Amino acid sequence: MSHPYFEHIPNIKYEGPDSTNPMAFRHYNKDKVIMGKTMEDHLRIAVCYWHTFCWDGFDVFGGGTFNRPWHGPVNDQKAAEEKLEAAFSFFQKLGNPFYCFHDVDMMANAETPAEYVKNLRLIADKAEAKMAETGVKLLWGTANMFSHPRYMAGASTNPNPDVVAFAALQVKECMEVTHRLGGSNYVLWGGREGYDTILNTNVKQEMSQLGRFLNMAVEHKHKIGFKGDILIEPKPHEPTKHQYDRDVGTVYGFLKAHGLENEVRVNIEPNHATLAGNSFEHEVEMANAFDIFGSIDFNRGDPQNGWDTDQFPNDIRETTMALYYILQGGGFKNGGSNFDAKVRRQSNDADDLFHAHIGGMDLLARCLENAADLIESKALSSFVDTRYDGWNDGIGQDMLSGKVDLETMAAYALDKNTSPVPISGRQEMLENIVTNHTK
Amino acid sequence: MSHPYFEHIPNIKYEGPDSTNPMAFRHYNKDKVIMGKTMEDHLRIAVCYWHTFCWDGFDVFGGGTFNRPWHGPVNDQKAAEEKLEAAFSFFQKLGNPFYCFHDVDMMANAETPAEYVKNLRLIADKAEAKMAETGVKLLWGTANMFSHPRYMAGASTNPNPDVVAFAALQVKECMEVTHRLGGSNYVLWGGREGYDTILNTNVKQEMSQLGRFLNMAVEHKHKIGFKGDILIEPKPHEPTKHQYDRDVGTVYGFLKAHGLENEVRVNIEPNHATLAGNSFEHEVEMANAFDIFGSIDFNRGDPQNGWDTDQFPNDIRETTMALYYILQGGGFKNGGSNFDAKVRRQSNDADDLFHAHIGGMDLLARCLENAADLIESKALSSFVDTRYDGWNDGIGQDMLSGKVDLETMAAYALDKNTSPVPISGRQEMLENIVTNHTK
Amino acid sequence: MSHPYFEHIPNIKYEGPDSTNPMAFRHYNKDKVIMGKTMEDHLRIAVCYWHTFCWDGFDVFGGGTFNRPWHGPVNDQKAAEEKLEAAFSFFQKLGNPFYCFHDVDMMANAETPAEYVKNLRLIADKAEAKMAETGVKLLWGTANMFSHPRYMAGASTNPNPDVVAFAALQVKECMEVTHRLGGSNYVLWGGREGYDTILNTNVKQEMSQLGRFLNMAVEHKHKIGFKGDILIEPKPHEPTKHQYDRDVGTVYGFLKAHGLENEVRVNIEPNHATLAGNSFEHEVEMANAFDIFGSIDFNRGDPQNGWDTDQFPNDIRETTMALYYILQGGGFKNGGSNFDAKVRRQSNDADDLFHAHIGGMDLLARCLENAADLIESKALSSFVDTRYDGWNDGIGQDMLSGKVDLETMAAYALDKNTSPVPISGRQEMLENIVTNHTK
Amino acid sequence: MSHPYFEHIPNIKYEGPDSTNPMAFRHYNKDKVIMGKTMEDHLRIAVCYWHTFCWDGFDVFGGGTFNRPWHGPVNDQKAAEEKLEAAFSFFQKLGNPFYCFHDVDMMANAETPAEYVKNLRLIADKAEAKMAETGVKLLWGTANMFSHPRYMAGASTNPNPDVVAFAALQVKECMEVTHRLGGSNYVLWGGREGYDTILNTNVKQEMSQLGRFLNMAVEHKHKIGFKGDILIEPKPHEPTKHQYDRDVGTVYGFLKAHGLENEVRVNIEPNHATLAGNSFEHEVEMANAFDIFGSIDFNRGDPQNGWDTDQFPNDIRETTMALYYILQGGGFKNGGSNFDAKVRRQSNDADDLFHAHIGGMDLLARCLENAADLIESKALSSFVDTRYDGWNDGIGQDMLSGKVDLETMAAYALDKNTSPVPISGRQEMLENIVTNHTK
Repeated sequence: MSHPYFEHIPNIKYEGPDSTNPMAFRHYNKDKVIMGKTMEDHLRIAVCYWHTFCWDGFDVFGGGTFNRPWHGPVNDQKAAEEKLEAAFSFFQKLGNPFYCFHDVDMMANAETPAEYVKNLRLIADKAEAKMAETGVKLLWGTANMFSHPRYMAGASTNPNPDVVAFAALQVKECMEVTHRLGGSNYVLWGGREGYDTILNTNVKQEMSQLGRFLNMAVEHKHKIGFKGDILIEPKPHEPTKHQYDRDVGTVYGFLKAHGLENEVRVNIEPNHATLAGNSFEHEVEMANAFDIFGSIDFNRGDPQNGWDTDQFPNDIRETTMALYYILQGGGFKNGGSNFDAKVRRQSNDADDLFHAHIGGMDLLARCLENAADLIESKALSSFVDTRYDGWNDGIGQDMLSGKVDLETMAAYALDKNTSPVPISGRQEMLENIVTNHTK
Repeated sequence: MSHPYFEHIPNIKYEGPDSTNPMAFRHYNKDKVIMGKTMEDHLRIAVCYWHTFCWDGFDVFGGGTFNRPWHGPVNDQKAAEEKLEAAFSFFQKLGNPFYCFHDVDMMANAETPAEYVKNLRLIADKAEAKMAETGVKLLWGTANMFSHPRYMAGASTNPNPDVVAFAALQVKECMEVTHRLGGSNYVLWGGREGYDTILNTNVKQEMSQLGRFLNMAVEHKHKIGFKGDILIEPKPHEPTKHQYDRDVGTVYGFLKAHGLENEVRVNIEPNHATLAGNSFEHEVEMANAFDIFGSIDFNRGDPQNGWDTDQFPNDIRETTMALYYILQGGGFKNGGSNFDAKVRRQSNDADDLFHAHIGGMDLLARCLENAADLIESKALSSFVDTRYDGWNDGIGQDMLSGKVDLETMAAYALDKNTSPVPISGRQEMLENIVTNHTK
Repeated sequence: MSHPYFEHIPNIKYEGPDSTNPMAFRHYNKDKVIMGKTMEDHLRIAVCYWHTFCWDGFDVFGGGTFNRPWHGPVNDQKAAEEKLEAAFSFFQKLGNPFYCFHDVDMMANAETPAEYVKNLRLIADKAEAKMAETGVKLLWGTANMFSHPRYMAGASTNPNPDVVAFAALQVKECMEVTHRLGGSNYVLWGGREGYDTILNTNVKQEMSQLGRFLNMAVEHKHKIGFKGDILIEPKPHEPTKHQYDRDVGTVYGFLKAHGLENEVRVNIEPNHATLAGNSFEHEVEMANAFDIFGSIDFNRGDPQNGWDTDQFPNDIRETTMALYYILQGGGFKNGGSNFDAKVRRQSNDADDLFHAHIGGMDLLARCLENAADLIESKALSSFVDTRYDGWNDGIGQDMLSGKVDLETMAAYALDKNTSPVPISGRQEMLENIVTNHTK
Repeated sequence: MSHPYFEHIPNIKYEGPDSTNPMAFRHYNKDKVIMGKTMEDHLRIAVCYWHTFCWDGFDVFGGGTFNRPWHGPVNDQKAAEEKLEAAFSFFQKLGNPFYCFHDVDMMANAETPAEYVKNLRLIADKAEAKMAETGVKLLWGTANMFSHPRYMAGASTNPNPDVVAFAALQVKECMEVTHRLGGSNYVLWGGREGYDTILNTNVKQEMSQLGRFLNMAVEHKHKIGFKGDILIEPKPHEPTKHQYDRDVGTVYGFLKAHGLENEVRVNIEPNHATLAGNSFEHEVEMANAFDIFGSIDFNRGDPQNGWDTDQFPNDIRETTMALYYILQGGGFKNGGSNFDAKVRRQSNDADDLFHAHIGGMDLLARCLENAADLIESKALSSFVDTRYDGWNDGIGQDMLSGKVDLETMAAYALDKNTSPVPISGRQEMLENIVTNHTK
């Protein structure tokens, strides 16, 4: 082992848009005030533990390429502590206010329930100390219930109740640790809550298990007094053929079916959105419409590759629009901007972790300014408001309020006896407005 | 005009699997009894009016190729009657028990509300007479609220309440005609109930309009005493960039949000399912799980082409599995098997309409037999039942019934203190069973 | 008819990035010199006739929404002349130096070969006069051999030689008109040169027909002394299930197989590239690598929709990178920047045509500046040059020059007897460079 | 270790279509004669070493689930020999005539070139003995040049010539071992011969390296007197963003560009075909058209999942059509039917390996019979022959033979002066024929 880690990297500082220093921010100026709040408070940026400190660069077709100096045996407490050391060193250099973790990212491996509890609590103590020492906060914690072979057929949706009990233990312990560490949210991603083949699956049974399990998690949250949000992270598939919580619309239906629509919010990931056939901004706006918006796992997929590439975001237009709708919806509350993104397998140098996060943070900062400009200009919103103006009174209002029925509406049409003239939706003009605000 | 139509085509008869006559059924033997019911009563096959009698073979890159003898001016009542003549001649030759229509498929074009009412009622009288004469029944009717330019920005989700009023008139009139003609269902496909760009759209507002509109339709159904089902047909996009009712899971959430989950069912189309990233059988099984299964628009997409190709189905395995889940869910009640499929643009001969429907009906008949065999053998279902056996008592049952909470589940795991051993899901063995039942 | 057309629209002028006038350019400053050449000469922007002046707003699910005042009966010479009037009025307001057309876009419809020749020449005379009068030039002409029902089974790949003869007539005449009008290129897009089903298709036979046909076109070019380029426009499918010239790599193989690799170049369309599973910049760089780059049909697809949406481009990053590789390859010679893009069906106002083209031209101008900056900074190219440095001498050079064989290379490895250490590809750092040059 | 392996599994025998024994063949009756050749000789079925004996069930989101008793340390010669023992025990139970391997599948791991040569030769000796003992033959061998970190930036396309030299060593040695073991073919799959980002890539340079490398391999084949085919296996991407040999059309262009079109054939994989946007049968027929058909890696992808799932094939229609075109092209010569397929991660029992291969072999046997019936009936081919009849004489023949030029063709059209009447392509009728032959 060779810490202190990242010794050759300076603390990353804001140097302005004209800087040519790759190890500096051009746009992320944390104390800059935008629409009455600092960039740091708007964005609530988090680094994720798994991709950044655990992944060794393997993929399905090849072994690890990274040789991180902090990687030791996975079942070793000392190695877990080295990784923690590396993580907090990285946070201090980068200046991110938050981080996120899965239980297994941080702790020494455990095979049995008793080991699990022991090892998780051991590392939680260490993390608590590090957080106190550095001031880095926890955006959210989560339990990994998809990597271990016991979860090959799902966690809460497993055909074997004993597996579900193990999952319950993980959620209970990990939620309590998250609470202890002052986490703002607790996340569930149902990585294998779905099926590989429908032929061996009782879909209705599994969705019932998932619904009950989620209710148990919510009840536990209230029991322990955790005030953060419980978040579900939608994804359509991968590793499963089909995952039950495929997108925001589906998750809403699921929550509603189980009486959870006021208890659970969504953690949206752009690469999951696009795998599900939705745009990133669509998922944000759907969450706003259903009032279940929670947090973002920023990343991007490759539009030509049909799997979860989890690349660092770099699309200015898409990120501007996502932040526009996030701000329109009131901005982040408990949620924030986690980078659920990994450097490419060929980026095998620890420096690449800095390039990636600097690029991501600068992007968010730049797009936050774009989004704020768009909002303040009202260039889009005033057009939209005018377009739906007819619903604020007359027959429109009467229909929405339930005052008129189908027959009355039909009679109104017959009475007018004209075919309404369609009016331009002005898509290209509005797209130009966005382009011109994409700076 | 040159009727009687299809004079050179014989009445299509069942001749058994070894027939070499392309104008005969090999498998569709309507009176054959499968699991206690005739094929005809199981499948409830319908021919659709639009693709079969209205489409002229145009596509985005080229003009009509068909030159149907029954095509006259679209705004002419006589031409509408010729088309009706052709349709019922076709039904009589083919022997399908049902048909389906959009208002505009059958009627002479109308620009104003008054004309609409007049022309729809005129053709409904004629259709009623033809139905009485031939015994062909109506599976469902629907109003086309997407082709006319007035609907370019949506029907019930249009920014202009006057457009919504026109749509209300269409739904009211068309539902009443459907009722009068003894239709088994009334369908809504939200072709433009979505957006071309989110930039000019108030998503929440539009979904409220859609929800209220659907409630109005349901209220009207009860008011007029229509006993059939109201069906929504999910589709993710096309012609829109995004359509609100994208798949069964999303529709369920929408219904639940508007208190409609016991009032509205789904009309599933395989090509829409696959465009949304779901398999056909998944959508059927989701509808079963939510108890909103209604009817099927049988067709298929091309797996290499990303648009709605609406081809006639010919996949024995997929259709077997869809019918397996349909039968497992209790089979069709008001619903049935409509072919929402069109012959290819190069199939410009009226004979091709027969080849296509004969192929489709034979496929359904063959797959119905396969599905029944699968069910009766219990080869799949007994495996599945055994797999979830642990939920019928003990901790599994206690969790589902709400008797235990997260803490108790966790304590149970800790008490056992083992990592459950994963058991094979036997996907390949089950797939072999399906293959061996695909005959 | 109601010309002069577009009276209420001013001549579109450059007003700089801070202009708030939607009917002005913010970036397209035609005389601005970038890397030694004016923007106008770099970009060679063309407006396409078909989408802009012919399309009426129909789609597969609905009728035309546009009601252009210049639209008359398609087989009427006067109506064709009105459309020409509208087109050149538009060009003069917009200030585009070039336009592009299909024969059938401009001419009155023709059913027979004789009519075809007559009507095409009639409109060519008028176009020639308009071009002389306005100074607008022709980037390329092409023959539409996919819209008429006679081409439903292909043009040069049709099973019927008489159809191929009709196509030969169109290409001959249209190439001669293109030559007469001073066109810079002649384009072939094989819209139906493929199959709807492989079951009725002799793939080898059809590819032979296509190869011979293309050779005939090239021979004719030389015979008439046309000095422009012959361009093929790759597309993978739509309207066909499969089109033979699916992407640049496939086209190169086809050209090579028919001895045409020095005679024919490619006209790349981003929306076709992405439908084929390639990025836009990939297709440009492949064309550079094979030395067959010709021209661009700028547009974009929707990443969530699997068909050819032909939208106006607005992606700054993608367009910057495409122009970067175009400039790296030497820039446009005969080719140019045609907008093969259409306003949305809801953009039913003629003003929308201006919004769309202004947005597109501004985008190209802005991205041209970005691309030039990237090139001049050598930020990417110097990294790439260094990365492949090992191939300029030693064993690398010996391998490429054919001096060493497999055995010698293997012996070299054995002799060194080490496993080379992998070096970071620095993807994130390079992406940051691009982001920082995307202004 | 616990061999003999698979003791509880009987030798798999043919028991006929009505057998209910999951450990028996229903259709694969190796000595049955179809079109003058036994099933065994037609299909030349091979088991692949990697998925079947090496993979431990890991995926990107979770660890291995299989716990194969023959898995030992990867760098241990004894463990390699145990795996060999397991493999040949499996072959003997299953009765497959062939197998396929990568160097690294069979050998103990090697870091240096010298170790590589030593370990490969050690296991080759053992394999040679096993083959002599059991009579199992080698369909093809290949070198894995994508899993080791040294190949993270490609093998022959690596920016570092030293990596290419290591690859040359592997190809030389592995081709020689393949030759020694009597292999019928030598395969190259360019797993990382492409790029993760075009930003750090010199596309032209890399394609030159690939071309020269392939030529070196071909030269070496001739030098050592290997009479089998050299095969390239096209794939569009994964693990790379873009792989150079994306599909058959692209590979043909590449071969032609490097003068290799008579030296190299293709090994087509259905899951790669569909990832590239082509149907399986399309790729076979393209290879036939270019005369570069070689072999098949049978498997299937999931139509809703955008990555290489490598599942065992079970689509009767698709496999029937692929075998139809293979037989139409003359059938397998050196090539054969390798299963490049893996059981699902949940199929963690060694029995599942048998279920999977039995299902695959039965499918091929059944579809071989279907394909032979289709050919012998001439139901498709006679339709196709008639459709292109016009090219056997007259203007059609004159065009193909080069006797007429564009002007003559055009004059022919003008002389006839009619618009040819389009004739039905009869897609639905032909699809019915296929359905009726899919038994």
